[in-house]
This record gives sequence, C-alpha cells and structure tokens, in this order.
Amino acid sequence: MKQNKAIIITIGDELLMGQTIDTNSTWMAKQLQACGIAVVKRIAVGDDAHMIREALDDAIPNCELVLITGGLGPTADDLTKPLLCEYFGGKLVMDETVLQMVSAIFEKRNLPLLERNRAQAAVPDTCKVVLNQRGTAPGMQFEKEGTTIIAMPGVPYEMMGIMEDAILPRLKQKNAHTTILHKHIVTIGMGESFLADKIADIENELPSHIKLAYLPHFRIVKLRLTGTSFDATALEMEMGKFQQQLAERLKEVVIALEDVPLEQLVKNIFLSQKKTLALAESCTGGYIGHTLTQLPGASEYFQGGIICYTNLVKTSVLGIPNTILETQGPVSEAVALQMAIQVRQLLKSDFGLGITGWLSPSPQQAPSETGTVWIAVSDGVHTIAQKYHIHYDRIRNKEIALQMALSLLLKHINGKES
Amino acid sequence: MKQNKAIIITIGDELLMGQTIDTNSTWMAKQLQACGIAVVKRIAVGDDAHMIREALDDAIPNCELVLITGGLGPTADDLTKPLLCEYFGGKLVMDETVLQMVSAIFEKRNLPLLERNRAQAAVPDTCKVVLNQRGTAPGMQFEKEGTTIIAMPGVPYEMMGIMEDAILPRLKQKNAHTTILHKHIVTIGMGESFLADKIADIENELPSHIKLAYLPHFRIVKLRLTGTSFDATALEMEMGKFQQQLAERLKEVVIALEDVPLEQLVKNIFLSQKKTLALAESCTGGYIGHTLTQLPGASEYFQGGIICYTNLVKTSVLGIPNTILETQGPVSEAVALQMAIQVRQLLKSDFGLGITGWLSPSPQQAPSETGTVWIAVSDGVHTIAQKYHIHYDRIRNKEIALQMALSLLLKHINGKES
Repeated sequence: MKQNKAIIITIGDELLMGQTIDTNSTWMAKQLQACGIAVVKRIAVGDDAHMIREALDDAIPNCELVLITGGLGPTADDLTKPLLCEYFGGKLVMDETVLQMVSAIFEKRNLPLLERNRAQAAVPDTCKVVLNQRGTAPGMQFEKEGTTIIAMPGVPYEMMGIMEDAILPRLKQKNAHTTILHKHIVTIGMGESFLADKIADIENELPSHIKLAYLPHFRIVKLRLTGTSFDATALEMEMGKFQQQLAERLKEVVIALEDVPLEQLVKNIFLSQKKTLALAESCTGGYIGHTLTQLPGASEYFQGGIICYTNLVKTSVLGIPNTILETQGPVSEAVALQMAIQVRQLLKSDFGLGITGWLSPSPQQAPSETGTVWIAVSDGVHTIAQKYHIHYDRIRNKEIALQMALSLLLKHINGKES
Repeated sequence: MKQNKAIIITIGDELLMGQTIDTNSTWMAKQLQACGIAVVKRIAVGDDAHMIREALDDAIPNCELVLITGGLGPTADDLTKPLLCEYFGGKLVMDETVLQMVSAIFEKRNLPLLERNRAQAAVPDTCKVVLNQRGTAPGMQFEKEGTTIIAMPGVPYEMMGIMEDAILPRLKQKNAHTTILHKHIVTIGMGESFLADKIADIENELPSHIKLAYLPHFRIVKLRLTGTSFDATALEMEMGKFQQQLAERLKEVVIALEDVPLEQLVKNIFLSQKKTLALAESCTGGYIGHTLTQLPGASEYFQGGIICYTNLVKTSVLGIPNTILETQGPVSEAVALQMAIQVRQLLKSDFGLGITGWLSPSPQQAPSETGTVWIAVSDGVHTIAQKYHIHYDRIRNKEIALQMALSLLLKHINGKES
C-alpha cells in the first residue's frame, strides 16, 4: 500500500501568498519518477506548526517516503526544525560535522559566523543528518511507522544538491527491478480534441499498464506514453510500437519523438548540417536569442543577432530602407523578409530569421492589428515569410511567437534536407 | 474557523510527474490574498478518483472556499467532472447556454464541433454553472456544509478568465471590511542572515498583526511586511513607519520600496529622465532585451541591442578591434567597455550597456574563469565597468548576470541624478 509511493510537503507562507512559484515539487517529482517512485500527493502549507503537523499526520500512513522542503533558514519565520524536533520526540544538539561545514562556508566567503548561522548546525537527536554541500542548513532524515521522512532547505539549488548527493542514488539502487518508461510524440498546430479524435482507436487499444496523457503548452501538444513493467526490454518494444503508430497517424503535425525543447531540436539540426544562424528580433526583443543560448555550446551555430526593437535600429543597423517601413509599416511581410535577408548578410551566417509583430495594443497600430506577427527565414537562395494571428496577452503572445519562429525555422531547414 | 480560509486543489498526473510547474496555485493564492482570504493549504493530486475524493473530504471541513483546477478537458485522462458529479450526488445534463458558447468558439475558429467538445457542455445538475468566456470547459460551483467548491479548467488563461469575470469581484465585495496590506523593502547584494542581524531589534518590535518574511531570489532579498486589520488607515500608517525604519537601517543595499521587478525600476527611471538605452549582450544572449521588453511601452526608452554572441559579431557589427579581443580575451574589462561605448553610438542612445562572460565551462576558457562576467555602462561621458564571479550553473549564472546588469545600470543612472 505504501510501497513506491511518495508525498511531497512544501512549507512556507510565500507558497500560499502567491509570492513564489513552487518549482521544487516539480523537480523532485520528476526525479522520484525516474527512480520508480510515484508521487501520489503534494501538500503545501504555511509556516504554521499546526498545519505542518497535520500534513505529516496525513502523509506518513500513505507512503513510504515523505520529502519536506522549506522553513529551515536562519530567520525567525523558519519553524520547521523545532516543529520536527517536537513531532519526532527529541532535542536539538550541535552536530560538529555540520558546524565545521557551516564555518568553512563563511570563511570562504570572508564573512563572520553569526550566532544564527551557528544555530543552523544544531539538529534533533532523533534524526540522521543528510549533509548539505551547498549551504548552511543540513538535511534531516527521520523514520516513523516504516516511512522515511526527509527535510531539506527550500532553496532549490541546495535541495537539488542534497537529493543528488545523498537521496536519489539510494532510491535508484533500491528500485532497480521496476521500470517506468516514457515515450513522447511532440506536435505543433493542432488542438488536443482533434488529436484525440484522430488517434481514438489507438488510444482504446492501449493496455492498462500504458497510459496516454495530453500536455498542451500554447500551440504545442505533447503526447506522453507512460508504461510500467518488470520486463524493461518487452516494455521498450511494446511502447516503441505504439509511439510509431501515433507518430505515423499524426505525421503532418509531429515535430519530434523525444521530449526535448524546440531550441534543442534547432541546435541538433544546425550542428548536424554544419550551418550557422543569425536573428533579427523586433517584437520578441531578444527572447529567441536568450532561448537558444540557454543550451551550452550554442555558439557553435548561433552567431548572434540584432534586437531591432525600434525603427531606428531597423534602418541604421540592418539598412532597411525607410520607404519600406513607411509604405508597408514595421509589421509587414516586406519588413520581415528584409530583416531575415539583411541580418543573414550582416552576420555572415547561413540562415537569417526575422520576426516583427504587434504583441499588445499600442497607439502606433490599429486595434485589429494587435497579435499580428510576421516571421521570415532566409538561406540566401530561398526566403519564406509567414503571417500569424495570436490572441492572448503580451507575455503569452511572445511565448507563442517564439514557438512559431523556431518551428518555421525547423520546417525550412528540414524541407531543404529532402 | 472556516471563515476567510481557502484551500486549493490542483488535479493532473502531470503535476505529480514533474512535467508541469504549478503556476495556477500561485496566481490564485495571490488573488485570494488581495480579497482578504488566506490560502491555508494547497493539495495536488493525480487524475485519480480516490485521491480527488480524499482531497475534497480533507478540504471541505477546513475552509469556506475550495478552488479546484484541472481534469475538465475533452480527453480520456480528464476525470474531474464525472467524479464531482458523483461526489455531490447528481447527473450530467446538457447546459444550453454553455453549448451555444462552445459552438460559437468552434464556428469562429472554422472548426467542426466534435462529439467530445459537445460533451463539454454537459454539467452536473447539482452545480451552478460559472461561464468560461475563454474556452470550452465551463466552471462549476457546488455547495456543501457551508463551503463553496468551484471547479475550473487547468489551462491558466481560462482559469484566470473565470476567476476575474465571476469569482473575484464577488469575494472582494464580501470581504470589503478587512484589510490585508503588504509593504516591501527590496535589497540586493546582502545575504538574509546579515539582513536579519542588522534589523533584529526592529523585527522584535513588530506587533503580532504584522509579519515579516525574507524572500531571497539569487542576489536579491525582498523583505515583505504583511499586516491585517479592520482599520485600513491606521494599518497603512503603522506599516509605513516600520517600512521606513527598515529602509533607513538597510539603506546601503535597498534598491526599491515596492515589489516591482528590476526591469520596471529601469523603465521608470529612463522614462522619468527621458533617456534611451542600447544593449550589447554577449553571454546573456538577448536575455536582458527580452526582460526589458516583457513590459509594454518598452520602446519609449529601449532602442534595441546587438547580440554579439560570437567574436565575429563583436568585430563586424560593433567594430571592436580584433587586437583587443586577441590580447585581452573576449571576457575582459576592455571588451565590456568597448561594447558599451560602441553600442551606444551605433544605436544613437543616451546609455549603452555591455555584458560579456563565461557562464559555463567550455574549451575556450580556463576552468578558473568559469563564472567571470564583466559588465560596463556608458553615458558617453563616463563609462564604468565591474567584474563579477558567479558560481552556479549556466541557467542560474545567466539569471544573476541579468540582475547584476540591471542593478549596475540603476546605480549609474541614479548616481548621475545627485
């Protein structure tokens, strides 16, 4: 009943006040999944002893592993440690190893060791210390009713360090015999209802140990197959077959058969074809460049770009004639084409991408034009341009414009392959 | 006991598998706060009837409002509607108003109405329909034991529409008599322990209806005062006094007394001083431009930028002499200064900002250089440059480089004021 089940408890008023987005839970859940442990519930409570106690009472009977983050810091709003000390019956004692580690951190940073930092090395005598190599608050492991409870600091970088160093390796070893596999089919441009209708017969044939989920993110819908089995090889073959069937059925909208972001697909194909890329970004303001350079090694194909946010930059840096801007307007096919062509030449690249649009209402454009985006891609011989209408707010429109730009680029460079 | 308390239940396997970050809860919690309703717990469960039922059993006795999102879509993994229908005792009936709205959406998009979309207009006869103006799954409101339970789709844009149109206005009216106020002191460059020590005496004097929280985000620590009272005017004065005290004590590290992002501070000061800005981004790859253009109206001061990710762009577009790059290296004071000076001239702006660094290990640099970032700001008369060492991974280093760049810019332009 408890076996291979985990519950995550995150603690902090900021999680209930809408000040902080809980990225810790997401990351922890993904890691546990890969170890064959299913997160069955996540509970977030404030810095409130009663609520923390209640969450523990709720979690411990229902899983074999409880992961807790938050409330271990050095300031007065951090309640988790004294509460856990009381909950598991014990008293705080100084841990010399932790104290040495804390002292070393402050020495390295050339900072004095405050009493409140020294206090971070005190732990309940009922716990096993889990060392934190990245910060001053140690992890603590408790056992109760056959359940392991591990408390970690809420700072993502420190929590990740403790998980990777001390917790995940042990879980992986323990669950080496069960296999959980994921297979993905990434699509763009078709809504989930239409996808579901097109593949209804395949979905109905899935055996009970393979589940299908639809994960929409703007214009992209990821289909995810999740399978569980003791026989890894058989599962891999079985799921591969279903993935192929789905991909074949949806071939006109499939862009990838792995769960990788668009920027990784762009990088892969540019490196394999030994091509280079330059960007002329108007409405996206640098977002495409930022996204491409999130991956290490981007400089192997990404030369750089011009953020031509104003007309002045479009004319003076890219050399787009003022007459085109005046007669066609800055958001037009002609300007997008010029941007792609000029930036490719200026940055001596194989491909140029230009993007210009109105992402939110402004006095410079008619209300009906809001959401219009023109994207162009040039390889020096062929230049294509496409118009899009996007109808959300500014932030979402920028996100969709990014997706559209990268997928038009993939389409153009893939088309050239055949 | 239940009064002014809310619990949020989010439903979806993807929330437990680490595939989706739960931004809905954060947004809802923030909105409820502003209506004087405290979220006391958030529960996330999978698409699993037993777990959803358990979460409802847990929530209803402990709050007056339960908000549920997710699992209302048109595909087979969406279980919430039939479960709620059973839980609150009722049967599904077609709602003609919803059906008309769903049909209109498909007509407008020039798409056929599939049976699975038609089915979205069926609702339990025990609920009150809450119309969804932005999508095909209606909201549903139930009542039980004095608690209101509202289920909404998990698509953030649709959930937000339902909240804004139908739910928040009613809650605001209902709780017009209690006031919850927040005051912020935003600091940069000092750790939370040191801040806490510097202000310990002020923190101890805070009355019980005013709480202080420390919210660190990389090098920025936000101090947030939260106060509750029936007397809005007195609370405003009382909290204003504490905010002033804290700001005075921490004046060397305070950058703002309101909870606004750095890019908003930059925009405010550039607009008020009627200055313009140009960027030369190397290691950040467009991230600064992207961040500045997240705000509407950025074009009033932000001219644009050059993403000079490779040396080729630094020389051919910005005109930085090859000899400087070769003798000093691309990550150097000389290159950062050149970038700021050149981009300011090229883009005819009042201020130029240049940033160059090694964000992650690569064969081009010595291991000890990883994390070195040079940032320069030029106003045509004075040019300053500063060196930073950042020791996280690539993604975090980029985030911190952004914070450092914007705060150096603020420092430079603020310094010129006096």
